[in-house]
Amino acid sequence: MSRAAAARADGAAARVHDAYDRIDAVDRPEVWITLRDRDAVLAEAEAVDPTLPLAGLLFAVKDNIDVAGLPTTAAARSYAYEPTVDATAVARLRAAGAVVVGKTNLDQFATGLVGTRSPFGAVRNAWDPSRISGGSSSGSATAAALGIVDFALGTDTAGSGRVPAALNHLVGVKPTKGIVPNTGVVPACRSQDCVTVFAPGLDRARTVAELMAGPDGRDPLAREDLALADLPAVPRIAIPLPAQLEGLAPGWADAFGSAVDRFRALGHEVVEVDIAPLLDAAALLYDGAFVAERYAAVGAHIDAHRDLVGDDLDPTVAAIVLGGATPTAAELFADQERLDALGAAGRIALEGTTALLTPTTTWHPTLAEVAADPVGANSRMGRYTNFANLLDMASIAVPAGFVDGLPFGVMLTGPAFTDRRLAALAAAFAAPTVDLLVVGAHLRDQPLNGQLVAAGGTFVREARTASDYRLYALDTVPPKPGLVRTPSDAGTGGIAGELWRLPAAGFGTFVAALPAPMAIGTVTLADGSDVTGFTVESHAVEGAEDITHHGGWRTYREHTVGGRS
Amino acid sequence: MSRAAAARADGAAARVHDAYDRIDAVDRPEVWITLRDRDAVLAEAEAVDPTLPLAGLLFAVKDNIDVAGLPTTAAARSYAYEPTVDATAVARLRAAGAVVVGKTNLDQFATGLVGTRSPFGAVRNAWDPSRISGGSSSGSATAAALGIVDFALGTDTAGSGRVPAALNHLVGVKPTKGIVPNTGVVPACRSQDCVTVFAPGLDRARTVAELMAGPDGRDPLAREDLALADLPAVPRIAIPLPAQLEGLAPGWADAFGSAVDRFRALGHEVVEVDIAPLLDAAALLYDGAFVAERYAAVGAHIDAHRDLVGDDLDPTVAAIVLGGATPTAAELFADQERLDALGAAGRIALEGTTALLTPTTTWHPTLAEVAADPVGANSRMGRYTNFANLLDMASIAVPAGFVDGLPFGVMLTGPAFTDRRLAALAAAFAAPTVDLLVVGAHLRDQPLNGQLVAAGGTFVREARTASDYRLYALDTVPPKPGLVRTPSDAGTGGIAGELWRLPAAGFGTFVAALPAPMAIGTVTLADGSDVTGFTVESHAVEGAEDITHHGGWRTYREHTVGGRS
Repeated sequence: MSRAAAARADGAAARVHDAYDRIDAVDRPEVWITLRDRDAVLAEAEAVDPTLPLAGLLFAVKDNIDVAGLPTTAAARSYAYEPTVDATAVARLRAAGAVVVGKTNLDQFATGLVGTRSPFGAVRNAWDPSRISGGSSSGSATAAALGIVDFALGTDTAGSGRVPAALNHLVGVKPTKGIVPNTGVVPACRSQDCVTVFAPGLDRARTVAELMAGPDGRDPLAREDLALADLPAVPRIAIPLPAQLEGLAPGWADAFGSAVDRFRALGHEVVEVDIAPLLDAAALLYDGAFVAERYAAVGAHIDAHRDLVGDDLDPTVAAIVLGGATPTAAELFADQERLDALGAAGRIALEGTTALLTPTTTWHPTLAEVAADPVGANSRMGRYTNFANLLDMASIAVPAGFVDGLPFGVMLTGPAFTDRRLAALAAAFAAPTVDLLVVGAHLRDQPLNGQLVAAGGTFVREARTASDYRLYALDTVPPKPGLVRTPSDAGTGGIAGELWRLPAAGFGTFVAALPAPMAIGTVTLADGSDVTGFTVESHAVEGAEDITHHGGWRTYREHTVGGRS
Repeated sequence: MSRAAAARADGAAARVHDAYDRIDAVDRPEVWITLRDRDAVLAEAEAVDPTLPLAGLLFAVKDNIDVAGLPTTAAARSYAYEPTVDATAVARLRAAGAVVVGKTNLDQFATGLVGTRSPFGAVRNAWDPSRISGGSSSGSATAAALGIVDFALGTDTAGSGRVPAALNHLVGVKPTKGIVPNTGVVPACRSQDCVTVFAPGLDRARTVAELMAGPDGRDPLAREDLALADLPAVPRIAIPLPAQLEGLAPGWADAFGSAVDRFRALGHEVVEVDIAPLLDAAALLYDGAFVAERYAAVGAHIDAHRDLVGDDLDPTVAAIVLGGATPTAAELFADQERLDALGAAGRIALEGTTALLTPTTTWHPTLAEVAADPVGANSRMGRYTNFANLLDMASIAVPAGFVDGLPFGVMLTGPAFTDRRLAALAAAFAAPTVDLLVVGAHLRDQPLNGQLVAAGGTFVREARTASDYRLYALDTVPPKPGLVRTPSDAGTGGIAGELWRLPAAGFGTFVAALPAPMAIGTVTLADGSDVTGFTVESHAVEGAEDITHHGGWRTYREHTVGGRS
């Protein structure tokens, strides 16, 4: 082995050892149904061509997706079989250099959004082990969130690739149906299932999704990605009516409001849309005849093993699937007619909008809450996810901060083949901006304005501080003012300034380079709102000239130095 | 009224009177369920803006499609309702200037391919009243074939817009599902139904189909036409394997072979394809759970009126529809999975071909034959039509000559949205060519060759007659030879000539202008095949020089006049 090859192999080996050490450290045995032997993974990782796009990355695979040589259980030992070839999605990722660490736990037969419906154990949330991971892709989401793997594969029929993303602070990419072939995937609802990706960041999740895409000549429902990617100059973000956001967990409505504000801050238009047709469609997935597709998939197995219900077969899942034996084909056609009408109404409601923004799920129950009401607790969780596949929509779940220390997530959903458009919106959202009030040398016609532009800043509008601020001319080069709040002194009329919007990263660099005595703090504007803005260390204004009566730095400079500096 | 307007109105009036006189003359009362009053049609026709694209055209509407003010029965009086608005398809044609004459008979609830399943009477074929019209769009096809209307609307779920076209020597356009909205159409199988057009000629049928196209904001299954129109330089026509053409009516296999030869004569490539997946999909339509969609559509009506079965409700139709109550939704999902697999296999089989060419149907039974075996006789008829809608394909039925004096038709079927491509292929087919053997002044280097080129002819190849022909130098200007068959004299070695291919219309003009003593007849070639070729009136060779020993006109001219022509 050459020295370079040895170094690469060492890097790959270190990554594998890190993963297995972390598996031991986190002590979450319920995450895995089959964990590969460390040495086997080590050998495979060391042999990967380092020029491949996913070389060096480790991933986990939900145990309803085939990996050659490992059993596929769909979380039922009685159902297990040992595939001799990889699922198409897995084969493409391995060909791209990624290495499988193991097969992960799930709500049995991918039936559930909770992650507790498995004889292999309820999967505990990565952030709070008293709470559910979300499901059905429970183990995959948790493995990714705990940093064991670089990404993980799930599946999504009614939200199984998005709800656990939201509850574990992950990106969850649910591609348009058919873009990723389902060859080698145990069907839940065959015509609604999608292979999905969990990753901490958007770029990796999208890269993995792209690498899995394209017909394989084997899945009859596979489709070419039309790859609609262009965004309008001003995207229009649809959000549900206020009444359609009722019943969220405490604090989640505010968190959603903040996410909406972030889209507004990006300059996007936000419009309220009545999404009743979508919510009604969501209800059809379990209440109507569509559940019969679950019976068509695994009903015969459960029927033949009724003695195992409560043991190897989860009672809640078995009851749901067996319920699918009852509806008639004529009822299904009637439901499909209702669904077609709801889909059309939904498209009309969303016409002219770029994507629908919703919370990803509605609450984050504890394991105990789900155990007390397995069906009711679950059914609340799919309100915003259930309709996407039924109505042939693409969707992406992205983290949107924390509420009471637990992850909160939002979701962008759009028509089939708008996956890249949704990703672009999510990328802008995930890279937030900061609005900064400037009152001196950074104003548009002042000497330091170029620093804002270099940091990616754009001018938003003129703004004036509240009337209890005073402005001082500091002894700096170049000359700068110092803005100081004087609450006892309410009558200055406020100081003129400008609001600039900077990408958070650019803003961070800008602040880090700030020279004393300048400082960044909070400034209250004339309209009462608070923004980030320039202030100054208090010592610097001692003895400085009070120029408040000029009303702003620009006027002061014009009056005292005879013109624009 | 201006004189011009009066003249136009007179023209419109004459057209309406012609139609009603013809209705009386043909004495086919079973064609109509509701015939409008002559005066009402007259008034409407006279008021049409003559600049509209369909101004002056009369049409008939299958009685499962709404026309405001006329009852819609779907061929069941017990089901009748009176719509207050036109179906979208009808509204668009009326807006384009066409005028409805009446509503036509059909196999009840559009369930059948025979045209006999109606309490309004079995519809007799336009060409032979002892035979079936074909169905379910029986009255519309017959009205168009009898020349009563300029075109007629049908619907097609399993072949109802194509089988009657074939049996009545009409073009039948079955657009891609969803291109023409189904708003105002009584569903047969809601997700499989298409509005179709019958017309004597391709251009009118396509014009009407285009005028009906485009989403209407009301039918959730309506789709934008992707309008794939480009043809490859050499289209590849797929035909079924010989075994898949077995069981055709006497003479129909040869008629189909001639149609295939016409495509070959156009320069198209013809390839045999195993269409077993398509034929298996066809069988699913009635044998599987898909029939439940008929129950979802009208099952409740039949269930509630079981006392009318045998009276207002056709017993065969009632039995088929009520059979749709039985299948479970899970069985339907299983059938859908089979269908998806068959569709994928069919796409693979047809990959690289431009369209599939088949007979439209398999036989043309008498009314008595259908009465004796209503289900069996019917089920034979849909072999090549049943799969198109299930597999989301476009199709067009075109006349392809006659067998024993009755129409024979073929069908071009292709992927969704290839409607225009199929129409272009059909247009080339409908404008056939003639291969002509020339042996004298029309050879490539001879003085009259320009006549062939002017008629649209193209050189195909050198060819030699059988060895029992003699050639004479005639006394004409310019000099021409006369080709004469002398069966008693088998040893001449044959006469050299050229095969030229002319469009039939161009050939007709060419023949009509032919000067005596030249004639066009049949010439047998050295390979034993017969072609159309030049011959000569027998009197003209009396006393003419026998130049057979030269082996051909060109050699004779070179040897006797010292050079070309």
